[in-house]
Amino acid sequence: MPRVRATRRVHFSAAHRLFRPDWPEERNQEVFGSCANPNWHGHNYELEVTVEGEVDPETGYVMDLKRLRAALESRVVEDVDHRNLNLEVEWLAGVNPTTENLVVAIWDRIVTHLPDGVRLARVVLHETPRNSVEYTGGDRS
Amino acid sequence: MPRVRATRRVHFSAAHRLFRPDWPEERNQEVFGSCANPNWHGHNYELEVTVEGEVDPETGYVMDLKRLRAALESRVVEDVDHRNLNLEVEWLAGVNPTTENLVVAIWDRIVTHLPDGVRLARVVLHETPRNSVEYTGGDRS
Amino acid sequence: MPRVRATRRVHFSAAHRLFRPDWPEERNQEVFGSCANPNWHGHNYELEVTVEGEVDPETGYVMDLKRLRAALESRVVEDVDHRNLNLEVEWLAGVNPTTENLVVAIWDRIVTHLPDGVRLARVVLHETPRNSVEYTGGDRS
Amino acid sequence: MPRVRATRRVHFSAAHRLFRPDWPEERNQEVFGSCANPNWHGHNYELEVTVEGEVDPETGYVMDLKRLRAALESRVVEDVDHRNLNLEVEWLAGVNPTTENLVVAIWDRIVTHLPDGVRLARVVLHETPRNSVEYTGGDRS
Amino acid sequence: MPRVRATRRVHFSAAHRLFRPDWPEERNQEVFGSCANPNWHGHNYELEVTVEGEVDPETGYVMDLKRLRAALESRVVEDVDHRNLNLEVEWLAGVNPTTENLVVAIWDRIVTHLPDGVRLARVVLHETPRNSVEYTGGDRS
Amino acid sequence: MPRVRATRRVHFSAAHRLFRPDWPEERNQEVFGSCANPNWHGHNYELEVTVEGEVDPETGYVMDLKRLRAALESRVVEDVDHRNLNLEVEWLAGVNPTTENLVVAIWDRIVTHLPDGVRLARVVLHETPRNSVEYTGGDRS
Repeated sequence: MPRVRATRRVHFSAAHRLFRPDWPEERNQEVFGSCANPNWHGHNYELEVTVEGEVDPETGYVMDLKRLRAALESRVVEDVDHRNLNLEVEWLAGVNPTTENLVVAIWDRIVTHLPDGVRLARVVLHETPRNSVEYTGGDRS
Repeated sequence: MPRVRATRRVHFSAAHRLFRPDWPEERNQEVFGSCANPNWHGHNYELEVTVEGEVDPETGYVMDLKRLRAALESRVVEDVDHRNLNLEVEWLAGVNPTTENLVVAIWDRIVTHLPDGVRLARVVLHETPRNSVEYTGGDRS
Repeated sequence: MPRVRATRRVHFSAAHRLFRPDWPEERNQEVFGSCANPNWHGHNYELEVTVEGEVDPETGYVMDLKRLRAALESRVVEDVDHRNLNLEVEWLAGVNPTTENLVVAIWDRIVTHLPDGVRLARVVLHETPRNSVEYTGGDRS
Repeated sequence: MPRVRATRRVHFSAAHRLFRPDWPEERNQEVFGSCANPNWHGHNYELEVTVEGEVDPETGYVMDLKRLRAALESRVVEDVDHRNLNLEVEWLAGVNPTTENLVVAIWDRIVTHLPDGVRLARVVLHETPRNSVEYTGGDRS
Repeated sequence: MPRVRATRRVHFSAAHRLFRPDWPEERNQEVFGSCANPNWHGHNYELEVTVEGEVDPETGYVMDLKRLRAALESRVVEDVDHRNLNLEVEWLAGVNPTTENLVVAIWDRIVTHLPDGVRLARVVLHETPRNSVEYTGGDRS
Repeated sequence: MPRVRATRRVHFSAAHRLFRPDWPEERNQEVFGSCANPNWHGHNYELEVTVEGEVDPETGYVMDLKRLRAALESRVVEDVDHRNLNLEVEWLAGVNPTTENLVVAIWDRIVTHLPDGVRLARVVLHETPRNSVEYTGGDRS
């Protein structure tokens, strides 16, 4: 059977700021600019998650995208929607919430929760309509 | 000359929460739900501002939209982009930042800063791709 | 208080065909073209519903858009999503499901289910990204 | 029968420049900025045309949108697509092709080519995703 | 010369249902949920087809995208637009029309109809703005 | 650290025509059709540039996307926005401005202007919402 990639898109709205607590405020401002605002700012995030696998000859699915959506809702969106990404998300504790760091953390939330034979292929997180980051796994140390 | 309406769209990203400081926290949670999160959340706002007037027979413009954009940037976007709408915007002091209240406050920032003969016709603020509020002036008390 | 308009967008996917059972098939083909296909076709519909009212000085809302969304889901989307608009929707019985007829029928589903002081201002139904119909009430006979 | 509004969207790509031949080049640069570039620039225009009328009890249509699309293609798009709006369009001769002037000229191309009982209600022309002009008729001298 | 990828997007609207005729109705409902509705539902599909090849030094094209569009229209869109994907498309006979199966079938319609030196690189089919499937060939048995 | 890809999107509006000066006009018309119009036409181009690298453990960035945006503005957008791509852009001299040729030329403008350890991964240029070309480097002769 052919291998294909199926993508589901979900969204959430959250507050964050970019900063390192071990840096003085001026250094945070210098490196992260207005993104370091101590009073926070926020975004409507769009998250696209792509899984890859053989088309199941019985169902014609790689996997039921309703199940993928349910995993994304329960393991990602419920934790981050209408939340503060610096303060309120257990699996982001200690993480500076750049889009790069978020996309890798979201990958780790999903990768072990897929059916047998289905692999996580790509996670894309759009912070704004003009900025996004994509992670396809691998190259970790 | 014909009267037409010209629209310019700008965007900003901000944090906010919906709440009334004179209400107990439980009442805020009850009325505003997750939007009342004391740790804030945020959005990518899209703002559409429409002006109306006769087409100037000399220029073929209602007004130069570059000037409208400049007014929107200096009187709105610079104050709210990457900011906390509850804490950091002078012209929103004491305002519960619902989309309804924001759109009226933005109207007031712009309405007296248009060229002679051009009237502010409509302000639309999109909080998410699925929610927006529109104000066309009038009916104030 | 200012009067504003708040809009909520929802979506559904449905099958339909345009035809009149009292016309011979050739006449249906002639008038409705490929839209009359007896084997059906379908669309991803986008529905935008706009309500108008004074901003409530207590909440800063015209109405809670979560309540509007809930009404749209329970009174419209649940009945039409993944359904056949000609065969399966009680409140469309006997209706030729053109976008014009759908938008008026959706208006009637919502108009009496809004809070006091809030009026239904506009319903827009997008059949495709290039075709839509808008109804603002009135002019019925 | 209820009166509704039906909208069809079409697109075209064209070159233009904003300038008045009776002005010296410096004045054109001063008023129109980079839009006056003598070597032209261009856009992907999106055109939305809205007609209004009673829903025909026989067909459930205000008018067949395929006929509206055909009128838009033959009376507008074929003349302007992949064309220079300053040099090649007979019905724009002598017109400075601002979005304001274009939208009024397009109105005039369409308004007398609609079926009986259907009136042209609105023409919107998007020059870019961030700039548009809307004309609803009337107020001409 | 550099190798690049060129993409053309087309759209169609169709009805379908997901089901296996060899399964009892309850099993179809259990596996495919509301997508198995025996009265059909439908979608506005967006199809993106990407070809890859060297840029032709004479024309500066990988291939004329107008030719790619023509192939997509004649070999795909004309067969499926305003059709029932289960009942009316010869090259989908016996296929359960999941997005996965559709994208592979569309690949097969196009892959042998490209100019010499141009290879089909990717087919993406969007069933809704939130669900899509991508196929890049290979891995068939 | 994980390797990720970050994308920034920018836009510009420009005029162009497709043609070879060494071909007779009829041959240009035959090969390039309406795109060869000697009076020019134009587009709103959307440019997406993707860089790849390890996430910097200090900042959580692959690179600061504000710096990528600044490079795109100064090395691409300022040269092409509101310009004629055939006549006015030094780094496109002698280039037939197909989307294929543009995307390779834009690659060359950016590839050597990225921070150490960050590689240019992909450039996508959308000529219209329905046509785009993507280049990922390599395969040059």
